[in-house]
Amino acid sequence: MTGSLVVIGLGPGSEGLCAPDATAALADATDLIGYGPYLDRVALAPGQTRHGSDNRVEIERARHALTLAEQGHRVAVVSSGDAGVFAMASAVFEAIEHGPASWRALDVSVIPGISAMFAAASRLGAPLGHDFCAISLSDNLKPWALVCHRLRLAAEAGFVISLYNARSRARPHQLAEALALLGETLPADTVVVFATAISRADERIEITTLAEANPENADMRTLVMIGSAQTRLIERPGARPWVYSPRSAPK
Amino acid sequence: MTGSLVVIGLGPGSEGLCAPDATAALADATDLIGYGPYLDRVALAPGQTRHGSDNRVEIERARHALTLAEQGHRVAVVSSGDAGVFAMASAVFEAIEHGPASWRALDVSVIPGISAMFAAASRLGAPLGHDFCAISLSDNLKPWALVCHRLRLAAEAGFVISLYNARSRARPHQLAEALALLGETLPADTVVVFATAISRADERIEITTLAEANPENADMRTLVMIGSAQTRLIERPGARPWVYSPRSAPK
Repeated sequence: MTGSLVVIGLGPGSEGLCAPDATAALADATDLIGYGPYLDRVALAPGQTRHGSDNRVEIERARHALTLAEQGHRVAVVSSGDAGVFAMASAVFEAIEHGPASWRALDVSVIPGISAMFAAASRLGAPLGHDFCAISLSDNLKPWALVCHRLRLAAEAGFVISLYNARSRARPHQLAEALALLGETLPADTVVVFATAISRADERIEITTLAEANPENADMRTLVMIGSAQTRLIERPGARPWVYSPRSAPK
Repeated sequence: MTGSLVVIGLGPGSEGLCAPDATAALADATDLIGYGPYLDRVALAPGQTRHGSDNRVEIERARHALTLAEQGHRVAVVSSGDAGVFAMASAVFEAIEHGPASWRALDVSVIPGISAMFAAASRLGAPLGHDFCAISLSDNLKPWALVCHRLRLAAEAGFVISLYNARSRARPHQLAEALALLGETLPADTVVVFATAISRADERIEITTLAEANPENADMRTLVMIGSAQTRLIERPGARPWVYSPRSAPK
């Protein structure tokens, strides 16, 4: 039996936003590997084995997946959103780079998905209609000073900024620091959005400003988006305003 | 009859990467509106009307779509990739902002899709595994000086940089300028990728470096990706090397 490893992003939550290629690869797998809550979103087919694991053990999980693939299993490594964005794809290639040479010959592939910031953007209007960036606020794997450096430059560049891993129980204070730092460059009325559990039953969207944003309203499932100077609201009757960034910038 | 307008991203090209929600919304529409080559990817159902248009008439196209929706049509505005990323969603909201008040009461929605940089990333490995940005290189709607400013700051920040609208017949020289400018900040051996027509029959991927990159190899369908200082190759037997950006940055 020839093994394989496919890294899959399930999209933000609803089945309607999961690519058919991802669904097909899940059905074809013998072994599903991932963070428990993500695996819970997949219904096991007869004969499939589920290998759930805790968060923050990505490299061990990647090595486990590669070992099973080498033994002949058809392994699917499951992430939320897009597997290539602050998720498992990078961990798998890190494991390959530092692992046995035989892992480089394995049949490995990645199937893209809809990442949290695009799911959030679609609910809001078109906040990512102009140049933008994505920054993980976690300092588990990079110095906090580097995060701050990037936030400053991103604000100066006029990017719309999507913050991944904005807040967790282990890192409750960084989002407030990040917002304060951005406030040194961006106006107080800059649009800020907290988008939580997008496309899921408990979806929650808060549209606020840099001056008013309350970091306590973010949790592990919140994507925080900071507008550029051009990002604006369109008020509408009986509904949340649209948020959009015009395609053009002032000449 | 109550009209509606849904803005849809078809994904990069293959049907397997188009979200089921997008497919369902297309099937439900009475009118499909978009740039001709994108509409060509959709099979018309009986009774559906196709309104193809040229490129670079986005606002006229958006107004047309809103007018039809107000008249009671169920309109789908079709983009490639994700409709919110340098595509039609922003044009639709721009038209709403500057249009009649009645347009704000219309049933408008956006369905997210898989944008070109994520499709390209999945074929390459995991180049977007760390902080990244997306910049449209077109100066049709913003000053070229602003593009250059953003490129400089993005390089200084250490973002992986995805360039959309990198080259067209009307703008053949800007990509060379952009690469030269990035070369002032980034090392000559920085990984550069030209990813063309990803997930389509004529898909083409070129992995090169900042010093060696030939802008002539890009066309209208090419996503150009510039690695960070951490982005690297993993050589493998009998296949293109993997490209990935580690999750961690040096402390």
